[in-house]
Amino acid sequence: MKLGLAQINTTVGDLAGNAAILGEAYRHLCAAGAEIVVFPELALCGYPPRDLVFKTRFVKDTWDATVQLAGSIGEIPAVFGTLVANDSGHGRRVYNGAVYCKHGRILSTARKCLLPTYDVFDEDRYFESAAEPVIVEDLGLKIGITICEDIWTGPLVETSRHYEKDPVASLARRGVDLVINLSASPWQAGKTGVRTPIVERVAKMAEAPCVYCNAVGGNDELIFDGHSMVVGADGTLLAGLAGFAPECAVVDLAAETPALSPRFALDPYEEIHDALVLGLRDYAHKSGFKKAVLGLSGGIDSALTAVLAARALGPENVIGISLPSAISSGHSKSDAAALAKNLGIRYESVAIAGIVDAAEAALEKVFAGTQRDVAEENIQARARGLLLMAVSNKFGALLLTTGNKSEVSVGYCTLYGDMAGGLAVISDLFKMQVYGLSRWINRAGEVIPQNSIEKPPSAELRPGQTDQDSLPPYPVLDEILRRYVELGQSSAEIVAATGYDGATVRDIVRKVDRNEYKRKQAAPGLKISPLAFGVGRRIPIVQKYVP
Amino acid sequence: MKLGLAQINTTVGDLAGNAAILGEAYRHLCAAGAEIVVFPELALCGYPPRDLVFKTRFVKDTWDATVQLAGSIGEIPAVFGTLVANDSGHGRRVYNGAVYCKHGRILSTARKCLLPTYDVFDEDRYFESAAEPVIVEDLGLKIGITICEDIWTGPLVETSRHYEKDPVASLARRGVDLVINLSASPWQAGKTGVRTPIVERVAKMAEAPCVYCNAVGGNDELIFDGHSMVVGADGTLLAGLAGFAPECAVVDLAAETPALSPRFALDPYEEIHDALVLGLRDYAHKSGFKKAVLGLSGGIDSALTAVLAARALGPENVIGISLPSAISSGHSKSDAAALAKNLGIRYESVAIAGIVDAAEAALEKVFAGTQRDVAEENIQARARGLLLMAVSNKFGALLLTTGNKSEVSVGYCTLYGDMAGGLAVISDLFKMQVYGLSRWINRAGEVIPQNSIEKPPSAELRPGQTDQDSLPPYPVLDEILRRYVELGQSSAEIVAATGYDGATVRDIVRKVDRNEYKRKQAAPGLKISPLAFGVGRRIPIVQKYVP
Repeated sequence: MKLGLAQINTTVGDLAGNAAILGEAYRHLCAAGAEIVVFPELALCGYPPRDLVFKTRFVKDTWDATVQLAGSIGEIPAVFGTLVANDSGHGRRVYNGAVYCKHGRILSTARKCLLPTYDVFDEDRYFESAAEPVIVEDLGLKIGITICEDIWTGPLVETSRHYEKDPVASLARRGVDLVINLSASPWQAGKTGVRTPIVERVAKMAEAPCVYCNAVGGNDELIFDGHSMVVGADGTLLAGLAGFAPECAVVDLAAETPALSPRFALDPYEEIHDALVLGLRDYAHKSGFKKAVLGLSGGIDSALTAVLAARALGPENVIGISLPSAISSGHSKSDAAALAKNLGIRYESVAIAGIVDAAEAALEKVFAGTQRDVAEENIQARARGLLLMAVSNKFGALLLTTGNKSEVSVGYCTLYGDMAGGLAVISDLFKMQVYGLSRWINRAGEVIPQNSIEKPPSAELRPGQTDQDSLPPYPVLDEILRRYVELGQSSAEIVAATGYDGATVRDIVRKVDRNEYKRKQAAPGLKISPLAFGVGRRIPIVQKYVP
Repeated sequence: MKLGLAQINTTVGDLAGNAAILGEAYRHLCAAGAEIVVFPELALCGYPPRDLVFKTRFVKDTWDATVQLAGSIGEIPAVFGTLVANDSGHGRRVYNGAVYCKHGRILSTARKCLLPTYDVFDEDRYFESAAEPVIVEDLGLKIGITICEDIWTGPLVETSRHYEKDPVASLARRGVDLVINLSASPWQAGKTGVRTPIVERVAKMAEAPCVYCNAVGGNDELIFDGHSMVVGADGTLLAGLAGFAPECAVVDLAAETPALSPRFALDPYEEIHDALVLGLRDYAHKSGFKKAVLGLSGGIDSALTAVLAARALGPENVIGISLPSAISSGHSKSDAAALAKNLGIRYESVAIAGIVDAAEAALEKVFAGTQRDVAEENIQARARGLLLMAVSNKFGALLLTTGNKSEVSVGYCTLYGDMAGGLAVISDLFKMQVYGLSRWINRAGEVIPQNSIEKPPSAELRPGQTDQDSLPPYPVLDEILRRYVELGQSSAEIVAATGYDGATVRDIVRKVDRNEYKRKQAAPGLKISPLAFGVGRRIPIVQKYVP
């Protein structure tokens, strides 16, 4: 049996464009000898379509495109994810479904059984769930069709407690010769290692090979990593496809040696690197930007963001702008210039002193009798935001924000200042991960100036200021934040688990809580952690909970 | 039977503060002769708690506060909403519940059956659902306890199709003498008229009186309007409490004349006015702001926002700032000054020319050889944002944004410019509603300068510019937007329904789609429509759907 896996990158809502991608992949895989071709979850309409599902025409248009695409499928069957209307008059109006097509017709329709409604997922909002997965009889085989979450069951999966049914057990009980899973499974660090045992368990339970076809590409905050795979009936991983890149591959179940892509087991920082490059590129290109612009402070965060941008879009499409103030140190400018030179990106320097002086002069009367404070510091940051947005508007370049998760957590960032921009590239990396990834990038030679990595981090909004003046050392800060933000632990639990100073922990926790309003207005950030700021974290802005 | 309704205003997460409010209301109603006291949904922890529910300590702390509050309940029973743990090991870990307390103990625990997961609601994300509502036997009565959505069933309620069970039918079948409903039902224009028949139907189906106790107050985007009520067993509305204000009232089921609050049936614009004043006041006060600041352009949007702010916070706590540019017309300044005088708010004028000139000078080299365009227009708007934020930071005043829903829909607003601010007060009012509400405010004399109402709207970013240069007349625009944004209709459907020019409709629809990225970074906006931008509308930023 030769299985065709179409690990493709589609765009949400782009029905015509996606249909073309599916059609091309189908023809390619047929030519390569596939006997069946499998696509990802909701491949035709893109995942996640979110509230597009509520548009009166969207489901119908998607179905029309489904029928049309089915019409182009020949003797070799294809299974692709699409929206399927629920015409029963009860329940949600749509299923997250798939169609099994052959000879120009839809032979069978599959419907997702388990609807993830946690983290970034809202599927109960959109979809009706099916009682059990469909089994298609074709090619002399009983083929069970599951969709993404349907196989995330069993004791290894914490979220399986949400569900009363187990589609894998249903298939095992009914008996199948092949299990297909169509997925759009967003990546997070370490996800690959979690996912493979899940698929292996499916094959073993069903006593049948399992084809897992995952989407690839960025859609808004989410990065789909591909890493599709085929597992034999005995639970052996037979083939693994590329990570973070499209790949169409034929896997022969009868072949004697496994065909793992060399990119199936990457270094952890290599995975993060590839994920961010893909997420940045797709966010920019899918929203029509060829170019990006960012402020280069000489610090490590903007340097890392610039590297990722240059690799995602090409150095010729990246503009780096140094925006020195009177307070900026000499190395701020020289480190930024050195980085730009290393990357081969366009480099400009625009002074902010004139704007800052003009703003302070304009406010002189209103501010009469007050002390200098954070208001004046923020004017500097917002002058930079204003200038960068002007460059963005003028040249049609996507402005990238450069804040990391540690800063964004505690609010060490200025709304409409350094937070101005269309995409937050590294806002889900704690500062220590920023260091780790930067060192990984420099593993074979200096890309990011060593001085940017080694000097003490500073916002340079006051003379001599460094981050560590008012924050604990980053390894401590990051661990507090990981426990508070990602695990939801209380201050007392963090102190008990780590032995950190209680006052420090409570101070950090307060800072996180108090800055929810800033994150509400942040640019979307690429998700690489189990819990990122963004659609997967929904804390009220106005709330007063203190344990 | 004398029913005590505690229509109170609690804050999300403020367990101690909320417990004090509940305790005081209980004592007050007992003293006023109540034989049972009913509170709103999740009154103790505040609604909606959103992802606070996932914090490891939050559910436990809420339960500890529940037990403590129960300990203070005497002979007169009280029913209040609170989080109830699900210790079964299956399903979500928490119920949206309520406790029936008496003699210092919890006699019974209620659990919500129907979990709204649409619009602004995500209850499937958080809660396990109960099979049917509990019936408590006390006071010689069988008392059925339902929570909010539990009674939104039957043919009048479109969303009832989501559910397989009907808690009201369950109570009717099992037989009850009294139905209690604890609600936190967010307001939207016209909601009161929809809600009363729902409660009347419950009483008729159950053949028992129904006590509907709704929360009041603003929490983030949502405004809870109160309007609690008691309906007799025959479906007659016996009593209605205040709208948009806390009220504790005892309703005697044996009384012969209904006791409707005069505020139970307000003028539609009076309702919107009261809702926005409440929402603005609570957003500011619950997040610790006493003062607000806003830019006064002389136009109707900022004038209306200023009126609402002065009424919510007191005129002495509002700062209005005129930010004229070289392009600003003379009436921009004089209308703004006249408004400030009418309201008695602090008024300042800060010129932006210096900042604009300094920014253009700083960018001269980078912009060499380019044409003047939207980049320069936006510098003006962002100079205003920078100045207003400086005033906000300096004086600890909440910056209010003044954009309306028509502008925000089509992207006639500048990120980090006029969109800068902590709360969008009128972002859910279409422009024609802005006119309507402004005229209502002026019904007994000029508050908003008549010139601000009558002159053609203009962003004044180019000389002589008016909104109507590039948009259809506002009555047409608003109708297109209402159909596209709120009803999800396609361009073709809108043209078919209205007869508007197809090219115009398609142009507006494109503008809405293209500006999703701006709304992603908008300040939270007070919701008054069936579908507001914000948590209830989740359109992908990067998407290419065209019907």
